[in-house]
Amino acid sequence: LVSVLSSAIIVYRLPWTWKCSKLLMKCIHAGLNTIAMILAIVSVVAAFDYHNASNIPNMYSLHSWIGLIAVIFYSLQLFLGFAVFLLPFAPVPLRAALMPIHVYSGLTIFATVIATALMGITEKLLFSLQNPSYSSSPPEATFVNCLGLLLVIFGALILWMASRPHWKRPPEENAKVLGPIGETPEGTEAESTMTDGSNADKSDLRINSEAARKQNLKLDDAGQRSTM
Amino acid sequence: LVSVLSSAIIVYRLPWTWKCSKLLMKCIHAGLNTIAMILAIVSVVAAFDYHNASNIPNMYSLHSWIGLIAVIFYSLQLFLGFAVFLLPFAPVPLRAALMPIHVYSGLTIFATVIATALMGITEKLLFSLQNPSYSSSPPEATFVNCLGLLLVIFGALILWMASRPHWKRPPEENAKVLGPIGETPEGTEAESTMTDGSNADKSDLRINSEAARKQNLKLDDAGQRSTM
Repeated sequence: LVSVLSSAIIVYRLPWTWKCSKLLMKCIHAGLNTIAMILAIVSVVAAFDYHNASNIPNMYSLHSWIGLIAVIFYSLQLFLGFAVFLLPFAPVPLRAALMPIHVYSGLTIFATVIATALMGITEKLLFSLQNPSYSSSPPEATFVNCLGLLLVIFGALILWMASRPHWKRPPEENAKVLGPIGETPEGTEAESTMTDGSNADKSDLRINSEAARKQNLKLDDAGQRSTM
Repeated sequence: LVSVLSSAIIVYRLPWTWKCSKLLMKCIHAGLNTIAMILAIVSVVAAFDYHNASNIPNMYSLHSWIGLIAVIFYSLQLFLGFAVFLLPFAPVPLRAALMPIHVYSGLTIFATVIATALMGITEKLLFSLQNPSYSSSPPEATFVNCLGLLLVIFGALILWMASRPHWKRPPEENAKVLGPIGETPEGTEAESTMTDGSNADKSDLRINSEAARKQNLKLDDAGQRSTM
């Protein structure tokens, strides 16, 4: 689940995909998230089934509360993302306004899912290791602790990749060749909707610099400095 | 601990502090983080003391592993932040290069601390609630689950505040009045070091727009659009 979720997050960050079409990449992003959603539902159903079969109460732990909330927000995120960014009906200003929220929610849900997994690991180790107990550090405990640690490191790497401006998919080529700034080419704004708030600034900046360079050579310096 | 850490993170995001000097704000940021560090060390020592007094092994759980790693990275972060950003010796390019890493590490450590707290809560509830057990959802369990949930909501809010470009402390006034772009006023670059990568772009952009507006009125449009 976490790995599918991660690949869905970083799918725009792979330089070798930048030559693929925007729509294809959106479909891959949506498809991977749909697979992750299905895995999430399967795992929630499995947990309920296991609890019911073993006469364990449902939804009593913090792990289950936060996990269920994460799944609910994730399905909302998937539904809204599909309706706004994949279907062609939403106007560009709405896409632009919702994109920073979509990016923030996606990354926050991802972090929450990792936190839920860590709580789940903690619970499972405490329940399952009885003789020898978790506190006597049997090999299983050390092994699973290492897995939990790798999960944190992996999550931190994904968040790093997703938040670096220079690993962002660059704006479409046609946005750059369309005339100077005053005219605001349609492609430019549609493009910046597929980035988070800061990256929208960055891509706007880059496009502005491109156009400005043609208008005023004095601005060259600024463009260089700001893409530093 | 989490509340002091949060106030340290968002201290630059409070509009009523934007009239205070940069140095004062840096000192408050460093001071709050130092208080949080002391609280973290006190809590780790308390955990070891309690374990030793009750003959419980130390450092066996995932909570303890990740918590200790978070404290180690946090002390590194505090030391490096003090040496690079507070002491006057580091050159501006080094500050600018390290600032995105400082911001990313700070927020990642913050998220990791919350995850550690959630694992700690899970452990504590499983250990302490025996009769009635955690799984029978006594009022204490529900109450502490709610606290854990509030912790997640609180953490998500802090990350939202810290990642919104328009809640960023604006660049110093003197940066704006210093001549056109080509001259690269010292204050401007020193300023943008105290923001993350994306915000550095934004502030650069804003300053560029300010100067460009004087040079070329046609650029007005771009400035408006990019601060949207």
